[in-house]
Amino acid sequence: MSSDPLVIFTPSGKRGNFPVGTPILTAARQLGVDLDSVCGGRGICSKCQITPSYGEFPKHGVTVAENALSDWNKVEERYDQKRGLAKGRRLGCQATVQGDIVIDVPPESQVHKQVVRKRAEVREITLNSTMSLSYVEVEQPDMHKPSGDLERLMTALKAATGHDYIEIDTHLLRPLQPILRKGDWTVTAAIHQGRDGRAPRITALWPGYFEGPLFGLAVDLGSTTIAGHLCNLSTGEVVASSGLMNPQIRFGEDLMSRVSYAMMNKGGDLEMTAAVREGLNQLVKDISTEAGVEPAQILDAVFVMNPVMHHLFMGIDPFELGQAPFALATSDALDLMASEIGLDIAPGTRAYLLPCIAGHVGADAAGVALSEAPDKSNDLALIVDVGTNAEILLGDTNGVLACSSPTGPAFEGAQISAGQRAAPGAIERVEIDPITKEPRFRVIGSELWSDDEGFEAAIATTGVTGICGSGIIEIIAEMRMAGLVDTSGLIGSAEQTGTSRCFLEGRTNSYRVWDGDADQGPITVTNGDIRAIQMAKAALYSGARLLMDKRGVDQVDRVVLAGAFGAHISAKHAMVLGMIPDCPLDKVTSAGNAAGTGARIALLNRESRSQIETLVRQIEKIETAVEPSFQEHFVNASALPNSSDPFPILRSVVDLPEPSFNTGGGDASGGGRRRRRRSA
Amino acid sequence: MSSDPLVIFTPSGKRGNFPVGTPILTAARQLGVDLDSVCGGRGICSKCQITPSYGEFPKHGVTVAENALSDWNKVEERYDQKRGLAKGRRLGCQATVQGDIVIDVPPESQVHKQVVRKRAEVREITLNSTMSLSYVEVEQPDMHKPSGDLERLMTALKAATGHDYIEIDTHLLRPLQPILRKGDWTVTAAIHQGRDGRAPRITALWPGYFEGPLFGLAVDLGSTTIAGHLCNLSTGEVVASSGLMNPQIRFGEDLMSRVSYAMMNKGGDLEMTAAVREGLNQLVKDISTEAGVEPAQILDAVFVMNPVMHHLFMGIDPFELGQAPFALATSDALDLMASEIGLDIAPGTRAYLLPCIAGHVGADAAGVALSEAPDKSNDLALIVDVGTNAEILLGDTNGVLACSSPTGPAFEGAQISAGQRAAPGAIERVEIDPITKEPRFRVIGSELWSDDEGFEAAIATTGVTGICGSGIIEIIAEMRMAGLVDTSGLIGSAEQTGTSRCFLEGRTNSYRVWDGDADQGPITVTNGDIRAIQMAKAALYSGARLLMDKRGVDQVDRVVLAGAFGAHISAKHAMVLGMIPDCPLDKVTSAGNAAGTGARIALLNRESRSQIETLVRQIEKIETAVEPSFQEHFVNASALPNSSDPFPILRSVVDLPEPSFNTGGGDASGGGRRRRRRSA
Repeated sequence: MSSDPLVIFTPSGKRGNFPVGTPILTAARQLGVDLDSVCGGRGICSKCQITPSYGEFPKHGVTVAENALSDWNKVEERYDQKRGLAKGRRLGCQATVQGDIVIDVPPESQVHKQVVRKRAEVREITLNSTMSLSYVEVEQPDMHKPSGDLERLMTALKAATGHDYIEIDTHLLRPLQPILRKGDWTVTAAIHQGRDGRAPRITALWPGYFEGPLFGLAVDLGSTTIAGHLCNLSTGEVVASSGLMNPQIRFGEDLMSRVSYAMMNKGGDLEMTAAVREGLNQLVKDISTEAGVEPAQILDAVFVMNPVMHHLFMGIDPFELGQAPFALATSDALDLMASEIGLDIAPGTRAYLLPCIAGHVGADAAGVALSEAPDKSNDLALIVDVGTNAEILLGDTNGVLACSSPTGPAFEGAQISAGQRAAPGAIERVEIDPITKEPRFRVIGSELWSDDEGFEAAIATTGVTGICGSGIIEIIAEMRMAGLVDTSGLIGSAEQTGTSRCFLEGRTNSYRVWDGDADQGPITVTNGDIRAIQMAKAALYSGARLLMDKRGVDQVDRVVLAGAFGAHISAKHAMVLGMIPDCPLDKVTSAGNAAGTGARIALLNRESRSQIETLVRQIEKIETAVEPSFQEHFVNASALPNSSDPFPILRSVVDLPEPSFNTGGGDASGGGRRRRRRSA
Repeated sequence: MSSDPLVIFTPSGKRGNFPVGTPILTAARQLGVDLDSVCGGRGICSKCQITPSYGEFPKHGVTVAENALSDWNKVEERYDQKRGLAKGRRLGCQATVQGDIVIDVPPESQVHKQVVRKRAEVREITLNSTMSLSYVEVEQPDMHKPSGDLERLMTALKAATGHDYIEIDTHLLRPLQPILRKGDWTVTAAIHQGRDGRAPRITALWPGYFEGPLFGLAVDLGSTTIAGHLCNLSTGEVVASSGLMNPQIRFGEDLMSRVSYAMMNKGGDLEMTAAVREGLNQLVKDISTEAGVEPAQILDAVFVMNPVMHHLFMGIDPFELGQAPFALATSDALDLMASEIGLDIAPGTRAYLLPCIAGHVGADAAGVALSEAPDKSNDLALIVDVGTNAEILLGDTNGVLACSSPTGPAFEGAQISAGQRAAPGAIERVEIDPITKEPRFRVIGSELWSDDEGFEAAIATTGVTGICGSGIIEIIAEMRMAGLVDTSGLIGSAEQTGTSRCFLEGRTNSYRVWDGDADQGPITVTNGDIRAIQMAKAALYSGARLLMDKRGVDQVDRVVLAGAFGAHISAKHAMVLGMIPDCPLDKVTSAGNAAGTGARIALLNRESRSQIETLVRQIEKIETAVEPSFQEHFVNASALPNSSDPFPILRSVVDLPEPSFNTGGGDASGGGRRRRRRSA
């Protein structure tokens, strides 16, 4: 056994014997303990702060004497005077081992910190971004040993980082000499560690010691909105968020109309490319101004988006995505200079686009997969990102399947007679009394129910203006539970249902939710509205059912609803409509903007990039358009909840009456012609 | 032993047994025989043509029967009808082994052809450029197995080329889908094989089969002229050459004045960067038009240049090169996109800059080293690239040293009273009769000597206008041999020399070479002219001598004169002046534009790039400015030929009289103040 002092690090538990005089930073590095250092142990950066512990440690089997570390030295004193060292802290590069010692590495001194996520069921993110800073002293030029300034910088950086080979961005060749001289032959380099097999690259330089932090952008490039988060790459913290309407909207509300615009107008795709890039540059400007961050410090960016947006963003004509076989120009992840795609951030900023899964299942779905990690789930998870196109993932540790299904815009309130966007005044929650068939509801902007005292005063400014996406789901599901709608989706007459709220409108019945007031007519649900929702939910359910068939299962263990819509939807009501498969209601959870979270994970942890690339290659892709059983599932799924699948778990908690309002004239199947649409 | 037929390839001598039915291309690939193929054996490209030999081959120990190869098949017949197959030729991918066979691979079917160089003493270049073409059939998209068009292209290319990993230029993502469809799912890719450790990259695409050739540019970016050669990368042939004046000349004739311009004028360096890049783009346009080559086929470019030009070309302020310690921003070789340095060729064109050796010894000297390969020389070679700055290399297989020496512009006719550029009418050759002291000469533009009949008629249009650089060397050396100039460089008086051609002009004597005529006054050599040449040649010689000191030798085995000036200089006259060290006259050779040849080698053979990078790192760099013995060598070298070194070999073939014309008033040392200048 060594007679050298024992050094024990917490929380890692790593331990080893080191000669008296060994700096703690050196010991940590030799043991592979995660202790940060930008300046390479020169006592400048203070990133390597540690907390020594003294006394008896029976758990570790050591006693730590008061003199187990060297006394404060001048570097620590100077640092403390200048910037203050918290009580009990030491600089790991200055304090040296004198006896057995227990060293705690506080979270802020760890490079690979855990970034806490709010939801209990998901893994935390381990911070491990593509970017790091390295401060070095560079040898001065010597006529006797001529060499370039760059070559001497590289020598210093290789020694500091342990990399054998480092490259440099061409744009840095010009500022290199002035920077080295301004920093008096010291410099801080931002080093981008690219994907496996690529050399690390210097992407920015600062004279002298630059303490950072560096920032990165995580962008969810939706067809309607662009949402960006600016993240501190040292802490993982989101320092600012911003969103804007996708400027491409002026070329078409939904994706297929944009594809059509490109087909009909020569150069139209490039107009849209320019528009979305311009929008992104505006977003970068807004977000960096808001956070007070220099664009020069924003050195990485990650993007998720659907396939059509992907192509339009990359400057690729989306023509092929508008027709079978829906061939993507490229599906793999892309590593680019941000400037290559027209982004005007810093000259060295990199851009990473997550891979696309298939022609209809884009990098946004890959983001969802990265965030929700079905491949790491022990139980079988169905993950649904609901939009005008639904991306559906089904899987567990045994494998993952994916498809997309053309739900259309009904879930977003389009095609619904009283439908509207989720905005103040929109009905979002509904209950219908199964006995009286009377509804009560809440609108966005007020916490009061419509039968609460003060409701009318509370909504005086907004009024009751329509029904938003989650509201229409609830109303129809409540109508179904109250016996106002039968399994085929027909609304009963006043006679059949016993309420005058049901009334004949043309050849079918409608249900009046709100009587209206002086300013606004009544709000009703028509049988056409129910048909639209039936078609949308049937598409969603049949996609999920198809994946379950492929997997050979009749039920799933849990359902995750991703996307903004998923965040507001009621699990019970969705299941009553048969949108999602039968499953315990407490196993239906919302993941929020999982695609955006996936972008943030890829930004904060570079290893997650190869993980998602590997997963995407392994995912079994199902194209619903060519699956014969899809149509059959669709027909069954048009019923409420389903004409074939029994939904026993749902029926054990919810009473579903089984009236039949078909008097021979209605279209009971709810089926009919569908056309493929893309997500918005 | 195998009973399979024996296949013997010539000229490689490689042999192996292969089953009946094996295509010759397959056998060649398995044996590592250098047999070209772009289409991967589909009978399209015809690059794999071979010549079978029949009959008795005692040398190889085989007898080849008439039916040793399969009969012509339909592919060969179709190819022959369409494009013609030379008699005796077969397509290596179609002809299969039926019996023992001897196969000759003609030079045009080899990838790694030898490119013949004109000079006997130098190695040939083995063709192995960075670029290759690969024709592939790409799997069509399939909704059941969704994948990007790019990913299927990559799969095909990896199979065809054997590369595990291939990348693609971003600019190709947009045209990819139309190209694949235009080529009906066949495509030819240009693949750039970068330096070790970098992935091969697709840099251009053509629909269907594109037979090439691809081209590359080798550019010698001089401070006065830019010379470019357009080379066929499949044959090594120079298909067009073009030169233009460096547009930077308007900012300063010589390099130091350009450095000054940058110092005195904010943004001046960027003006010069823009000027040289504009000039290069013009050159590319001229040269591709002249050769009738599409710029899209020019996919590689190699550059050599001195350090100041290097920095100005790269957009780096040359400020640091104007003062000690002459620090280069970067000395290593640079691999770039041509577009990164403002070159507007094809979007995928690459640029390679040879490494710089030191602050005064640039990539042009590296080009000379690559062309003349002193590191591979068994005898000790001194290689001198003469310009306004001389770059000097000394070495053999035991090692190479390098320095530069500030010769100034005298060798180019500047600072010489009757000096002029090498142009018609300039005196270029001179002889002086040692008895009569009468000169005879030749001027550029006529083959006649001045004492030949018809000389005056021959020069009627040009006249005799002055003395060019090589002419002044000859005149002074002839004056020295005729006893008109003493070892200290003083011209004798008419009395001392016995010829009235010597005459007093101010405080020193001059020599009248030509009496003049009605149009033009006499042409004379002044003692000032001799002083200027003495200083220039002393700088050159002392640089060489310094390297010889470092190497510990008193003489070299051979001298190579590189550069345009070196091509015209007379070895004997240069040695009489003591420009170059003593050595047998037949061991002094001219290498022409060796720097430009080095660029061409780096263009045609990618392995030569790592070779020169390694050599440049190994070269021992000597900075003359900090070597104390340089001054002493300089003083000694001011004498004609030298006041210290005896030049015994020269004296064994040339009579050097030893008069002394110093009457106490002259400056016998020939030394004096010098200032550092850079090569032009």
